[in-house]
Amino acid sequence: MQADLDQLHVVLVAPRNPLNIGAAARAMSNFGFLHLRVVNPYAVAFREARSAVGASELLANAEEYKSLAEAVADCTLVVGTTAVRHRDLQHPLKRLEYGARVIRKHFGSGRVALVFGTEKFGLATKDLSHCNWLMRIPTREEHISMNLGQAVAVCLYELSRDSKAAQQTERLERVSAGEVERISEVLLEALRASGYVNPHAEALTEDKVRRLVRRLSLQAGDAELWLGMLRQMLWKIRSGEK
Amino acid sequence: MQADLDQLHVVLVAPRNPLNIGAAARAMSNFGFLHLRVVNPYAVAFREARSAVGASELLANAEEYKSLAEAVADCTLVVGTTAVRHRDLQHPLKRLEYGARVIRKHFGSGRVALVFGTEKFGLATKDLSHCNWLMRIPTREEHISMNLGQAVAVCLYELSRDSKAAQQTERLERVSAGEVERISEVLLEALRASGYVNPHAEALTEDKVRRLVRRLSLQAGDAELWLGMLRQMLWKIRSGEK
Repeated sequence: MQADLDQLHVVLVAPRNPLNIGAAARAMSNFGFLHLRVVNPYAVAFREARSAVGASELLANAEEYKSLAEAVADCTLVVGTTAVRHRDLQHPLKRLEYGARVIRKHFGSGRVALVFGTEKFGLATKDLSHCNWLMRIPTREEHISMNLGQAVAVCLYELSRDSKAAQQTERLERVSAGEVERISEVLLEALRASGYVNPHAEALTEDKVRRLVRRLSLQAGDAELWLGMLRQMLWKIRSGEK
Repeated sequence: MQADLDQLHVVLVAPRNPLNIGAAARAMSNFGFLHLRVVNPYAVAFREARSAVGASELLANAEEYKSLAEAVADCTLVVGTTAVRHRDLQHPLKRLEYGARVIRKHFGSGRVALVFGTEKFGLATKDLSHCNWLMRIPTREEHISMNLGQAVAVCLYELSRDSKAAQQTERLERVSAGEVERISEVLLEALRASGYVNPHAEALTEDKVRRLVRRLSLQAGDAELWLGMLRQMLWKIRSGEK
């Protein structure tokens, strides 16, 4: 898997803001993409980003290039990111959901450059001419342009997204049916003791309470807690009867 | 669709950094989630974020609350975000890919609060006690903690992600088969004129060239360009023969 991620090179063209460079690096580290290339960064910004507290090894290892052509020379697929969605773009345009899939497939056969333009204007026409195709994040028409660091994070998330993991839930152990039943019984006892249960409809009430407790879908640690609270209330109710 | 998005309330608990508040608001606007609630923000940060250039209407309309309990009171599902993945968390933990699906389903029946903790420490234990379950972004073990603005962007992207759109490519019109054939013919003519084609293997070469041109998967506008270039070369080759 890491071998796959190592096929991706994130390329920032002429970034101006050290916070954005740092944010891009942080997102890369979060999602396990460790190769950053920077083309003609604003020198002060790049220096500041590198010296910032928390700047990772990733940023220290970032490679600097004079032109986009040099930065992508060893890549067999070059994908530009854009907010623009003009039909008259000179390139095919894929939505991130689909584009990321195409990129992942390419990891098997060669290096991929994922290129982000400068903060204000995105990729220039001459930069686009180095790209095989363009990818856009599906933002809404009224506000298409994303912050650079956030755009990098969203693209890398989609690239490392695991649709199979979508099925999994890491959940706490559930209470066993036996424990659920113990809770139901003590609750019923407390309800009977408190006069809640109409003796003529006892079976009906029992069923209702059983279903009610089961709908709680209690977690393992909580069963003891509920039992303790109910037993205490039951004890109090009974001690009042004496 | 917007009715669905309107069911989500992004809740920031005690944010400290105006840039993060602004970044969260920007990502919300990008993906069409317009309801922001802020619990006990650092007053200066909230004021600065609101007055920042480019701060949207969304930020101006953000609601301020004194406690998380008040901020989520009208929601029927409260989901906390966390970087932590301890098995001993007191809540079920879902990965974003799956959690977002559960949240989207809930849009049909009630409001959902998506809660983000403070920058440094995330959600406190007392905040977690207001959540139905927790959601985590699948970052790598070595660097799990994301920047707040980026975490908001990634969660909202997943919530507005369209897996069906994953099939679509917005691509340029392709060249028609007729145009591809015209290009093949002119190229062949130029190759013949330049002596590239061995007369004994002409049929073989023709097939090879036809397949070669078709593999280019040319775009509509490019066909004329190629024809023009090839015709010019053909003309030059022929004019040299005279």
